[in-house]
Amino acid sequence: MVVSVAYLGPKGTYAEAAALAYTNQLAEELAQTTQLYPYPSIAETLRALARGQAYLAVVPVENSVEGSVSNTLDTLWQLPTLQIQHSLVLPISHALISCAKSLATIRTVYSHPQALAQCQGWLERSLPSVGLVPTNATTEALHCLSEDKTAAAIASLRAAELYNLPVLACPINDYPENHTRFWVLGLESSKSGNQTSLAFSVPTNVPGALVKPLFCFASRGINLSRIVSRPTKRSLGEYLFFVDLEADPREAAVQSALEELTSCTETLKIFGSY
Amino acid sequence: MVVSVAYLGPKGTYAEAAALAYTNQLAEELAQTTQLYPYPSIAETLRALARGQAYLAVVPVENSVEGSVSNTLDTLWQLPTLQIQHSLVLPISHALISCAKSLATIRTVYSHPQALAQCQGWLERSLPSVGLVPTNATTEALHCLSEDKTAAAIASLRAAELYNLPVLACPINDYPENHTRFWVLGLESSKSGNQTSLAFSVPTNVPGALVKPLFCFASRGINLSRIVSRPTKRSLGEYLFFVDLEADPREAAVQSALEELTSCTETLKIFGSY
Repeated sequence: MVVSVAYLGPKGTYAEAAALAYTNQLAEELAQTTQLYPYPSIAETLRALARGQAYLAVVPVENSVEGSVSNTLDTLWQLPTLQIQHSLVLPISHALISCAKSLATIRTVYSHPQALAQCQGWLERSLPSVGLVPTNATTEALHCLSEDKTAAAIASLRAAELYNLPVLACPINDYPENHTRFWVLGLESSKSGNQTSLAFSVPTNVPGALVKPLFCFASRGINLSRIVSRPTKRSLGEYLFFVDLEADPREAAVQSALEELTSCTETLKIFGSY
Repeated sequence: MVVSVAYLGPKGTYAEAAALAYTNQLAEELAQTTQLYPYPSIAETLRALARGQAYLAVVPVENSVEGSVSNTLDTLWQLPTLQIQHSLVLPISHALISCAKSLATIRTVYSHPQALAQCQGWLERSLPSVGLVPTNATTEALHCLSEDKTAAAIASLRAAELYNLPVLACPINDYPENHTRFWVLGLESSKSGNQTSLAFSVPTNVPGALVKPLFCFASRGINLSRIVSRPTKRSLGEYLFFVDLEADPREAAVQSALEELTSCTETLKIFGSY
Protein backbone atom coordinates (compact mmCIF):
# COMPACT_ATOMS: atom_id res chain seq x y z
CA MET A 1 0.00 0.00 0.00
CA VAL A 2 1.20 3.52 -0.81
CA VAL A 3 0.72 5.81 2.22
CA SER A 4 -0.62 9.23 1.12
CA VAL A 5 0.69 12.17 3.14
CA ALA A 6 -0.92 15.65 3.00
CA TYR A 7 1.33 18.58 3.90
CA LEU A 8 1.24 22.37 3.95
CA GLY A 9 2.67 23.12 0.51
CA PRO A 10 3.76 24.06 -2.02
CA LYS A 11 6.98 22.10 -2.71
CA GLY A 12 9.98 23.56 -0.91
CA THR A 13 8.20 24.54 2.34
CA TYR A 14 9.58 23.53 5.72
CA ALA A 15 6.48 21.37 6.18
CA GLU A 16 7.52 19.40 3.08
CA ALA A 17 11.00 18.96 4.60
CA ALA A 18 9.34 17.63 7.78
CA ALA A 19 7.08 15.31 5.77
CA LEU A 20 10.12 13.98 3.85
CA ALA A 21 12.08 13.42 7.08
CA TYR A 22 9.17 11.41 8.49
CA THR A 23 8.42 9.40 5.36
CA ASN A 24 12.11 8.51 4.93
CA GLN A 25 11.96 7.08 8.44
CA LEU A 26 8.79 5.11 7.53
CA ALA A 27 10.52 3.79 4.40
CA GLU A 28 13.57 2.63 6.35
CA GLU A 29 11.80 1.15 9.35
CA LEU A 30 8.66 -0.30 7.79
CA ALA A 31 9.55 -0.43 4.08
CA GLN A 32 6.44 1.70 3.47
CA THR A 33 6.10 3.54 0.17
CA THR A 34 4.73 7.07 0.54
CA GLN A 35 3.38 9.76 -1.74
CA LEU A 36 3.30 13.45 -0.69
CA TYR A 37 0.43 15.80 -1.58
CA PRO A 38 0.75 19.58 -1.03
CA TYR A 39 -2.28 21.59 0.21
CA PRO A 40 -2.57 25.41 0.11
CA SER A 41 -3.42 25.95 3.79
CA ILE A 42 -3.17 24.25 7.17
CA ALA A 43 -6.97 23.96 7.41
CA GLU A 44 -7.17 22.26 3.99
CA THR A 45 -4.28 19.92 4.87
CA LEU A 46 -6.05 18.77 8.04
CA ARG A 47 -9.50 18.59 6.39
CA ALA A 48 -8.05 16.34 3.66
CA LEU A 49 -7.03 13.94 6.45
CA ALA A 50 -10.41 14.18 8.22
CA ARG A 51 -12.22 13.39 4.93
CA GLY A 52 -9.98 10.36 4.32
CA GLN A 53 -8.29 11.87 1.23
CA ALA A 54 -4.93 11.32 2.92
CA TYR A 55 -3.67 8.77 5.42
CA LEU A 56 -1.38 11.18 7.28
CA ALA A 57 -0.97 14.97 7.49
CA VAL A 58 2.09 17.05 8.42
CA VAL A 59 1.60 20.60 9.75
CA PRO A 60 3.68 23.06 11.84
CA VAL A 61 2.72 23.45 15.52
CA GLU A 62 5.10 26.01 17.01
CA ASN A 63 8.24 27.92 16.24
CA SER A 64 10.80 28.85 18.89
CA VAL A 65 10.73 32.53 17.88
CA GLU A 66 7.24 33.21 16.57
CA GLY A 67 5.31 30.89 18.89
CA SER A 68 2.30 28.69 18.26
CA VAL A 69 0.73 28.23 14.86
CA SER A 70 -2.83 29.33 15.62
CA ASN A 71 -4.38 27.77 12.50
CA THR A 72 -3.15 24.32 13.48
CA LEU A 73 -4.58 24.54 17.01
CA ASP A 74 -7.90 26.12 15.95
CA THR A 75 -8.47 23.54 13.16
CA LEU A 76 -7.54 20.61 15.42
CA TRP A 77 -10.10 21.76 18.01
CA GLN A 78 -12.75 21.72 15.24
CA LEU A 79 -11.70 18.27 13.89
CA PRO A 80 -11.49 16.13 17.01
CA THR A 81 -11.25 12.83 15.11
CA LEU A 82 -7.62 13.67 14.24
CA GLN A 83 -4.94 12.07 16.38
CA ILE A 84 -1.33 13.14 16.74
CA GLN A 85 0.97 10.23 15.92
CA HIS A 86 4.39 11.81 15.95
CA SER A 87 6.19 15.09 16.71
CA LEU A 88 9.39 16.20 15.02
CA VAL A 89 11.56 19.30 15.34
CA LEU A 90 13.43 20.84 12.40
CA PRO A 91 16.04 23.61 12.51
CA ILE A 92 14.92 26.61 10.46
CA SER A 93 17.54 28.34 8.37
CA HIS A 94 16.31 31.18 6.16
CA ALA A 95 18.12 32.05 2.92
CA LEU A 96 17.90 35.25 0.88
CA ILE A 97 17.25 34.02 -2.65
CA SER A 98 17.64 36.39 -5.60
CA CYS A 99 19.02 36.77 -9.11
CA ALA A 100 20.32 40.26 -8.17
CA LYS A 101 24.08 40.77 -8.60
CA SER A 102 24.41 42.17 -5.08
CA LEU A 103 22.30 43.24 -2.09
CA ALA A 104 22.53 46.86 -3.30
CA THR A 105 20.27 46.24 -6.32
CA ILE A 106 17.43 44.58 -4.35
CA ARG A 107 14.28 46.71 -4.04
CA THR A 108 11.66 44.21 -2.77
CA VAL A 109 11.75 41.13 -0.52
CA TYR A 110 8.89 38.61 -0.62
CA SER A 111 8.10 35.95 1.97
CA HIS A 112 5.58 34.53 4.43
CA PRO A 113 4.93 37.04 7.28
CA GLN A 114 6.49 34.62 9.85
CA ALA A 115 9.72 34.38 7.82
CA LEU A 116 9.83 38.19 7.34
CA ALA A 117 9.34 38.60 11.11
CA GLN A 118 12.11 36.07 11.88
CA CYS A 119 14.60 38.03 9.71
CA GLN A 120 13.46 41.53 10.72
CA GLY A 121 16.74 42.57 12.36
CA TRP A 122 18.89 41.31 9.46
CA LEU A 123 16.61 43.06 6.94
CA GLU A 124 16.79 46.37 8.87
CA ARG A 125 20.60 46.20 8.97
CA SER A 126 21.37 44.80 5.49
CA LEU A 127 18.46 46.04 3.36
CA PRO A 128 17.16 49.08 5.25
CA SER A 129 15.26 50.67 2.36
CA VAL A 130 13.63 47.68 0.59
CA GLY A 131 9.89 47.02 0.50
CA LEU A 132 8.74 43.91 2.39
CA VAL A 133 5.85 42.09 0.73
CA PRO A 134 4.02 39.29 2.58
CA THR A 135 3.06 36.13 0.63
CA ASN A 136 0.98 33.05 1.47
CA ALA A 137 4.00 30.72 1.44
CA THR A 138 7.76 31.31 1.61
CA THR A 139 8.06 29.81 -1.88
CA GLU A 140 5.27 31.82 -3.56
CA ALA A 141 7.46 34.52 -5.14
CA LEU A 142 10.27 32.19 -6.30
CA HIS A 143 8.96 31.77 -9.85
CA CYS A 144 9.16 35.57 -10.47
CA LEU A 145 12.79 36.00 -9.35
CA SER A 146 14.47 35.08 -12.64
CA GLU A 147 12.51 37.79 -14.44
CA ASP A 148 12.75 40.51 -11.77
CA LYS A 149 16.38 41.00 -10.76
CA THR A 150 15.47 43.66 -8.16
CA ALA A 151 13.37 41.14 -6.21
CA ALA A 152 14.41 38.64 -3.53
CA ALA A 153 12.57 35.98 -1.51
CA ILE A 154 13.23 34.46 1.91
CA ALA A 155 12.86 30.67 1.86
CA SER A 156 14.81 27.50 2.66
CA LEU A 157 18.03 26.37 0.96
CA ARG A 158 16.06 23.38 -0.32
CA ALA A 159 13.58 25.76 -2.01
CA ALA A 160 16.49 27.55 -3.73
CA GLU A 161 17.76 24.18 -5.01
CA LEU A 162 14.30 23.02 -6.16
CA TYR A 163 13.71 26.24 -8.11
CA ASN A 164 17.37 26.39 -9.24
CA LEU A 165 17.93 29.92 -7.90
CA PRO A 166 21.01 31.62 -6.39
CA VAL A 167 21.37 32.20 -2.62
CA LEU A 168 22.78 35.64 -1.69
CA ALA A 169 22.95 35.12 2.09
CA CYS A 170 22.21 32.30 4.55
CA PRO A 171 21.32 32.01 7.39
CA ILE A 172 19.67 35.41 7.82
CA ASN A 173 17.37 34.62 10.77
CA ASP A 174 17.85 36.93 13.76
CA TYR A 175 17.76 34.13 16.32
CA PRO A 176 20.20 31.31 15.47
CA GLU A 177 18.23 28.98 17.78
CA ASN A 178 15.31 28.82 15.37
CA HIS A 179 13.38 25.56 15.39
CA THR A 180 9.89 24.55 14.29
CA ARG A 181 7.97 21.61 15.71
CA PHE A 182 5.68 19.68 13.35
CA TRP A 183 2.97 17.15 14.10
CA VAL A 184 2.25 14.07 12.01
CA LEU A 185 -1.47 13.34 12.37
CA GLY A 186 -3.66 10.40 11.39
CA LEU A 187 -7.14 9.07 12.11
CA GLU A 188 -5.94 6.25 14.36
CA SER A 189 -4.39 6.94 17.72
CA SER A 190 -0.82 5.88 18.20
CA LYS A 191 -0.54 3.05 20.69
CA SER A 192 2.05 4.59 23.01
CA GLY A 193 4.33 7.54 23.69
CA ASN A 194 5.63 9.71 26.51
CA GLN A 195 4.03 12.92 25.19
CA THR A 196 0.28 13.55 25.44
CA SER A 197 -1.53 16.51 23.89
CA LEU A 198 -4.95 17.76 24.91
CA ALA A 199 -7.07 20.89 24.99
CA PHE A 200 -9.87 22.11 27.24
CA SER A 201 -12.14 25.04 27.92
CA VAL A 202 -12.85 26.15 31.48
CA PRO A 203 -15.98 27.62 33.11
CA THR A 204 -15.87 31.40 32.54
CA ASN A 205 -15.47 34.09 35.21
CA VAL A 206 -14.60 31.65 38.00
CA PRO A 207 -11.51 32.76 39.97
CA GLY A 208 -8.85 30.09 39.65
CA ALA A 209 -10.70 28.28 36.84
CA LEU A 210 -7.37 27.52 35.16
CA VAL A 211 -5.54 26.63 38.37
CA LYS A 212 -7.70 23.56 39.06
CA PRO A 213 -6.91 21.82 35.72
CA LEU A 214 -3.21 22.63 36.07
CA PHE A 215 -3.21 21.38 39.65
CA CYS A 216 -4.47 17.95 38.44
CA PHE A 217 -1.05 17.52 36.83
CA ALA A 218 1.20 19.46 39.24
CA SER A 219 -0.07 17.54 42.28
CA ARG A 220 1.02 14.31 40.58
CA GLY A 221 4.42 15.65 39.47
CA ILE A 222 3.45 15.55 35.79
CA ASN A 223 5.31 18.23 33.83
CA LEU A 224 3.63 20.39 31.20
CA SER A 225 6.02 21.00 28.32
CA ARG A 226 3.69 23.55 26.74
CA ILE A 227 0.57 25.57 27.51
CA VAL A 228 -1.06 27.83 24.96
CA SER A 229 -4.29 29.82 25.15
CA ARG A 230 -6.54 30.42 22.15
CA PRO A 231 -9.78 32.41 22.00
CA THR A 232 -13.01 30.35 21.93
CA LYS A 233 -14.17 32.79 19.18
CA ARG A 234 -17.45 33.19 21.10
CA SER A 235 -16.61 36.26 23.13
CA LEU A 236 -13.54 38.35 24.00
CA GLY A 237 -11.95 36.94 27.15
CA GLU A 238 -13.05 33.29 26.72
CA TYR A 239 -10.18 30.89 26.10
CA LEU A 240 -9.30 27.32 25.23
CA PHE A 241 -6.05 25.91 26.61
CA PHE A 242 -3.82 23.53 24.65
CA VAL A 243 -1.49 21.52 26.86
CA ASP A 244 1.32 19.05 26.16
CA LEU A 245 2.15 16.64 29.00
CA GLU A 246 5.43 14.82 29.45
CA ALA A 247 3.59 11.68 30.39
CA ASP A 248 2.59 8.26 29.11
CA PRO A 249 -1.21 7.81 29.35
CA ARG A 250 -0.76 4.16 30.40
CA GLU A 251 0.64 5.30 33.77
CA ALA A 252 -1.91 5.20 36.60
CA ALA A 253 -1.05 8.78 37.72
CA VAL A 254 -1.82 10.12 34.26
CA GLN A 255 -5.10 8.20 34.07
CA SER A 256 -6.26 9.58 37.40
CA ALA A 257 -5.17 13.12 36.41
CA LEU A 258 -7.22 12.87 33.21
CA GLU A 259 -10.22 11.58 35.16
CA GLU A 260 -10.02 14.48 37.61
CA LEU A 261 -9.57 16.86 34.68
CA THR A 262 -13.00 16.01 33.21
CA SER A 263 -14.64 17.28 36.42
CA CYS A 264 -13.02 20.75 36.33
CA THR A 265 -13.12 21.53 32.60
CA GLU A 266 -16.06 22.48 30.38
CA THR A 267 -14.97 20.56 27.26
CA LEU A 268 -11.93 18.27 27.14
CA LYS A 269 -10.41 16.84 23.95
CA ILE A 270 -7.46 14.45 23.91
CA PHE A 271 -5.38 14.50 20.74
CA GLY A 272 -3.33 11.39 21.44
CA SER A 273 0.01 10.20 22.81
CA TYR A 274 3.08 9.87 20.69
CA MET B 1 0.14 71.34 25.33
CA VAL B 2 -0.71 69.17 22.34
CA VAL B 3 -0.59 65.48 23.30
CA SER B 4 1.11 63.43 20.53
CA VAL B 5 -0.33 59.93 20.02
CA ALA B 6 1.49 57.25 18.01
CA TYR B 7 -0.70 54.52 16.49
CA LEU B 8 -0.39 51.53 14.16
CA GLY B 9 -1.19 53.19 10.84
CA PRO B 10 -1.79 54.10 8.13
CA LYS B 11 -4.95 56.23 8.32
CA GLY B 12 -8.12 54.15 8.31
CA THR B 13 -6.86 51.26 10.46
CA TYR B 14 -8.83 50.00 13.44
CA ALA B 15 -5.96 51.23 15.66
CA GLU B 16 -6.60 54.75 14.35
CA ALA B 17 -10.29 54.35 15.22
CA ALA B 18 -9.26 53.28 18.75
CA ALA B 19 -6.86 56.22 19.04
CA LEU B 20 -9.61 58.62 17.91
CA ALA B 21 -12.10 57.14 20.41
CA TYR B 22 -9.59 57.65 23.21
CA THR B 23 -8.46 61.14 22.20
CA ASN B 24 -12.07 62.33 21.83
CA GLN B 25 -12.57 61.22 25.42
CA LEU B 26 -9.44 63.15 26.49
CA ALA B 27 -10.69 66.22 24.66
CA GLU B 28 -14.09 66.08 26.36
CA GLU B 29 -12.92 65.24 29.86
CA LEU B 30 -9.67 67.17 30.08
CA ALA B 31 -9.95 69.63 27.18
CA GLN B 32 -6.65 68.19 25.90
CA THR B 33 -5.68 68.81 22.29
CA THR B 34 -4.18 65.76 20.59
CA GLN B 35 -2.33 65.03 17.38
CA LEU B 36 -2.21 61.51 15.89
CA TYR B 37 0.91 60.07 14.19
CA PRO B 38 0.72 56.80 12.22
CA TYR B 39 3.64 54.30 12.36
CA PRO B 40 4.15 51.39 9.95
CA SER B 41 4.43 48.59 12.56
CA ILE B 42 3.53 47.82 16.16
CA ALA B 43 7.23 47.68 17.14
CA GLU B 44 7.87 51.13 15.63
CA THR B 45 4.76 52.57 17.31
CA LEU B 46 5.92 51.37 20.73
CA ARG B 47 9.57 52.34 20.15
CA ALA B 48 8.46 55.89 19.25
CA LEU B 49 6.86 56.08 22.70
CA ALA B 50 9.91 54.58 24.46
CA ARG B 51 12.17 57.17 22.73
CA GLY B 52 9.88 60.01 23.81
CA GLN B 53 8.81 60.87 20.23
CA ALA B 54 5.19 60.43 21.30
CA TYR B 55 3.41 60.93 24.61
CA LEU B 56 0.98 58.01 24.15
CA ALA B 57 0.77 54.95 21.86
CA VAL B 58 -2.27 52.92 20.78
CA VAL B 59 -1.78 49.29 19.64
CA PRO B 60 -4.03 46.20 19.36
CA VAL B 61 -3.65 43.53 22.08
CA GLU B 62 -6.08 40.77 21.23
CA ASN B 63 -8.94 39.92 18.92
CA SER B 64 -11.84 37.70 19.96
CA VAL B 65 -11.40 35.46 16.88
CA GLU B 66 -7.70 35.54 16.05
CA GLY B 67 -6.32 35.79 19.59
CA SER B 68 -3.38 37.72 20.94
CA VAL B 69 -1.31 40.12 18.89
CA SER B 70 2.15 38.60 19.37
CA ASN B 71 4.09 41.68 18.21
CA THR B 72 2.51 43.81 20.92
CA LEU B 73 3.36 41.35 23.71
CA ASP B 74 6.89 40.61 22.45
CA THR B 75 7.75 44.32 22.04
CA LEU B 76 6.31 45.23 25.43
CA TRP B 77 8.49 42.56 27.10
CA GLN B 78 11.53 44.19 25.46
CA LEU B 79 10.53 47.76 26.43
CA PRO B 80 9.68 47.49 30.12
CA THR B 81 9.54 51.27 30.70
CA LEU B 82 6.17 51.36 28.92
CA GLN B 83 3.09 51.41 31.12
CA ILE B 84 -0.47 50.57 30.14
CA GLN B 85 -2.77 53.46 30.96
CA HIS B 86 -6.05 52.41 29.43
CA SER B 87 -7.75 49.49 27.68
CA LEU B 88 -10.57 49.86 25.17
CA VAL B 89 -12.57 47.37 23.12
CA LEU B 90 -13.84 48.13 19.60
CA PRO B 91 -16.28 46.04 17.54
CA ILE B 92 -14.66 44.94 14.28
CA SER B 93 -16.81 45.05 11.16
CA HIS B 94 -15.08 44.16 7.90
CA ALA B 95 -16.27 45.62 4.58
CA LEU B 96 -15.54 44.41 1.05
CA ILE B 97 -14.40 47.55 -0.75
CA SER B 98 -14.15 47.54 -4.56
CA CYS B 99 -14.91 49.55 -7.70
CA ALA B 100 -16.12 46.32 -9.38
CA LYS B 101 -19.73 46.41 -10.67
CA SER B 102 -20.55 43.12 -8.89
CA LEU B 103 -18.89 40.30 -6.95
CA ALA B 104 -18.71 38.27 -10.18
CA THR B 105 -16.02 40.50 -11.71
CA ILE B 106 -13.65 40.40 -8.71
CA ARG B 107 -10.47 38.37 -9.28
CA THR B 108 -8.26 39.37 -6.32
CA VAL B 109 -8.91 40.35 -2.70
CA TYR B 110 -6.21 42.21 -0.71
CA SER B 111 -6.03 42.61 3.06
CA HIS B 112 -4.02 42.05 6.21
CA PRO B 113 -3.70 38.27 6.93
CA GLN B 114 -5.78 38.62 10.15
CA ALA B 115 -8.66 40.26 8.22
CA LEU B 116 -8.48 37.62 5.45
CA ALA B 117 -8.58 34.92 8.15
CA GLN B 118 -11.57 36.54 9.86
CA CYS B 119 -13.56 36.52 6.58
CA GLN B 120 -12.39 33.10 5.34
CA GLY B 121 -15.84 31.46 5.37
CA TRP B 122 -17.54 34.37 3.62
CA LEU B 123 -14.79 34.47 0.97
CA GLU B 124 -15.07 30.70 0.35
CA ARG B 125 -18.85 30.97 -0.11
CA SER B 126 -19.14 34.30 -1.99
CA LEU B 127 -15.85 34.53 -3.92
CA PRO B 128 -14.70 30.89 -4.17
CA SER B 129 -12.24 31.35 -7.04
CA VAL B 130 -10.53 34.67 -6.26
CA GLY B 131 -6.88 35.03 -5.30
CA LEU B 132 -6.26 36.20 -1.73
CA VAL B 133 -3.25 38.50 -1.38
CA PRO B 134 -1.91 39.40 2.09
CA THR B 135 -0.81 43.01 2.73
CA ASN B 136 0.92 44.78 5.64
CA ALA B 137 -2.19 46.76 6.59
CA THR B 138 -5.90 46.43 5.73
CA THR B 139 -5.72 49.80 3.95
CA GLU B 140 -2.57 49.12 1.88
CA ALA B 141 -4.31 48.14 -1.38
CA LEU B 142 -7.02 50.85 -1.25
CA HIS B 143 -5.18 53.32 -3.49
CA CYS B 144 -5.05 50.75 -6.37
CA LEU B 145 -8.79 49.94 -6.38
CA SER B 146 -9.95 52.82 -8.57
CA GLU B 147 -7.54 51.70 -11.33
CA ASP B 148 -8.05 47.93 -11.04
CA LYS B 149 -11.77 47.13 -11.18
CA THR B 150 -11.15 43.39 -10.70
CA ALA B 151 -9.56 44.01 -7.29
CA ALA B 152 -11.17 44.33 -3.85
CA ALA B 153 -9.86 45.03 -0.36
CA ILE B 154 -11.15 44.11 3.09
CA ALA B 155 -11.01 47.06 5.51
CA SER B 156 -13.24 49.12 7.77
CA LEU B 157 -16.20 51.25 6.66
CA ARG B 158 -14.24 54.26 7.89
CA ALA B 159 -11.38 53.35 5.50
CA ALA B 160 -13.86 53.19 2.59
CA GLU B 161 -15.09 56.68 3.53
CA LEU B 162 -11.58 58.12 3.94
CA TYR B 163 -10.50 56.80 0.53
CA ASN B 164 -13.90 57.60 -1.01
CA LEU B 165 -14.45 54.05 -2.31
CA PRO B 166 -17.64 51.96 -2.72
CA VAL B 167 -18.56 49.16 -0.28
CA LEU B 168 -19.90 45.99 -1.96
CA ALA B 169 -20.72 44.02 1.21
CA CYS B 170 -20.57 44.65 4.99
CA PRO B 171 -20.16 43.04 7.47
CA ILE B 172 -18.40 40.03 5.95
CA ASN B 173 -16.65 38.66 9.07
CA ASP B 174 -17.48 35.02 9.84
CA TYR B 175 -17.98 35.59 13.57
CA PRO B 176 -20.41 38.45 14.28
CA GLU B 177 -18.98 38.69 17.82
CA ASN B 178 -15.71 40.16 16.56
CA HIS B 179 -14.00 42.58 18.93
CA THR B 180 -10.46 43.85 19.30
CA ARG B 181 -8.98 45.15 22.53
CA PHE B 182 -6.44 48.00 22.31
CA TRP B 183 -4.03 49.33 24.90
CA VAL B 184 -3.17 52.99 25.35
CA LEU B 185 0.39 53.13 26.69
CA GLY B 186 2.53 55.90 28.14
CA LEU B 187 5.77 56.30 30.11
CA GLU B 188 4.05 57.15 33.38
CA SER B 189 2.03 54.60 35.26
CA SER B 190 -1.64 55.30 35.72
CA LYS B 191 -2.47 55.96 39.36
CA SER B 192 -5.31 53.48 39.73
CA GLY B 193 -7.48 50.87 38.04
CA ASN B 194 -9.09 47.51 38.60
CA GLN B 195 -7.11 45.74 35.85
CA THR B 196 -3.41 44.89 36.25
CA SER B 197 -1.22 43.44 33.49
CA LEU B 198 2.07 41.65 34.05
CA ALA B 199 4.33 39.05 32.48
CA PHE B 200 6.79 36.53 33.88
CA SER B 201 9.09 33.70 32.94
CA VAL B 202 9.28 30.56 35.07
CA PRO B 203 12.19 28.22 35.88
CA THR B 204 12.40 25.65 33.06
CA ASN B 205 11.71 21.93 33.34
CA VAL B 206 10.28 22.11 36.85
CA PRO B 207 6.98 20.19 37.17
CA GLY B 208 4.26 22.62 38.18
CA ALA B 209 6.43 25.69 37.47
CA LEU B 210 3.38 27.51 36.13
CA VAL B 211 1.00 26.30 38.84
CA LYS B 212 2.84 28.14 41.65
CA PRO B 213 2.51 31.62 40.08
CA LEU B 214 -1.15 30.99 39.23
CA PHE B 215 -1.81 29.70 42.74
CA CYS B 216 -0.56 33.05 44.18
CA PHE B 217 -3.70 34.60 42.67
CA ALA B 218 -6.18 31.72 42.93
CA SER B 219 -5.53 31.22 46.67
CA ARG B 220 -6.52 34.88 47.20
CA GLY B 221 -9.63 34.71 44.99
CA ILE B 222 -8.07 37.04 42.38
CA ASN B 223 -9.43 36.29 38.92
CA LEU B 224 -7.25 36.16 35.82
CA SER B 225 -9.11 37.62 32.86
CA ARG B 226 -6.40 36.48 30.42
CA ILE B 227 -3.33 34.26 30.26
CA VAL B 228 -1.19 34.01 27.14
CA SER B 229 2.07 32.17 26.57
CA ARG B 230 4.80 33.45 24.26
CA PRO B 231 8.13 31.80 23.43
CA THR B 232 11.22 33.26 25.17
CA LYS B 233 12.94 33.02 21.74
CA ARG B 234 15.89 31.31 23.48
CA SER B 235 14.90 27.70 22.97
CA LEU B 236 11.85 25.71 21.82
CA GLY B 237 9.71 24.91 24.86
CA GLU B 238 10.64 27.98 26.99
CA TYR B 239 7.79 30.40 27.57
CA LEU B 240 6.84 33.77 28.99
CA PHE B 241 3.34 34.19 30.41
CA PHE B 242 1.32 37.39 30.05
CA VAL B 243 -1.43 37.69 32.63
CA ASP B 244 -4.23 40.22 33.19
CA LEU B 245 -5.65 40.36 36.72
CA GLU B 246 -9.07 41.68 37.68
CA ALA B 247 -7.60 43.43 40.67
CA ASP B 248 -6.59 46.82 42.01
CA PRO B 249 -2.92 46.84 43.09
CA ARG B 250 -3.75 49.02 46.09
CA GLU B 251 -5.60 46.10 47.73
CA ALA B 252 -3.56 44.24 50.33
CA ALA B 253 -4.37 40.83 48.83
CA VAL B 254 -2.97 41.91 45.47
CA GLN B 255 0.18 43.32 47.05
CA SER B 256 0.87 40.10 48.92
CA ALA B 257 0.16 38.04 45.75
CA LEU B 258 2.68 40.13 43.79
CA GLU B 259 5.25 39.74 46.58
CA GLU B 260 4.84 35.96 46.61
CA LEU B 261 5.01 35.98 42.80
CA THR B 262 8.56 37.37 42.76
CA SER B 263 9.74 34.29 44.67
CA CYS B 264 8.35 31.73 42.19
CA THR B 265 9.11 33.45 38.87
CA GLU B 266 12.42 33.93 37.06
CA THR B 267 11.73 37.45 35.69
CA LEU B 268 8.61 39.47 36.55
CA LYS B 269 7.54 42.66 34.77
CA ILE B 270 4.50 44.71 35.77
CA PHE B 271 2.98 46.77 32.99
CA GLY B 272 0.66 48.86 35.15
CA SER B 273 -2.91 49.12 36.39
CA TYR B 274 -5.61 50.91 34.49
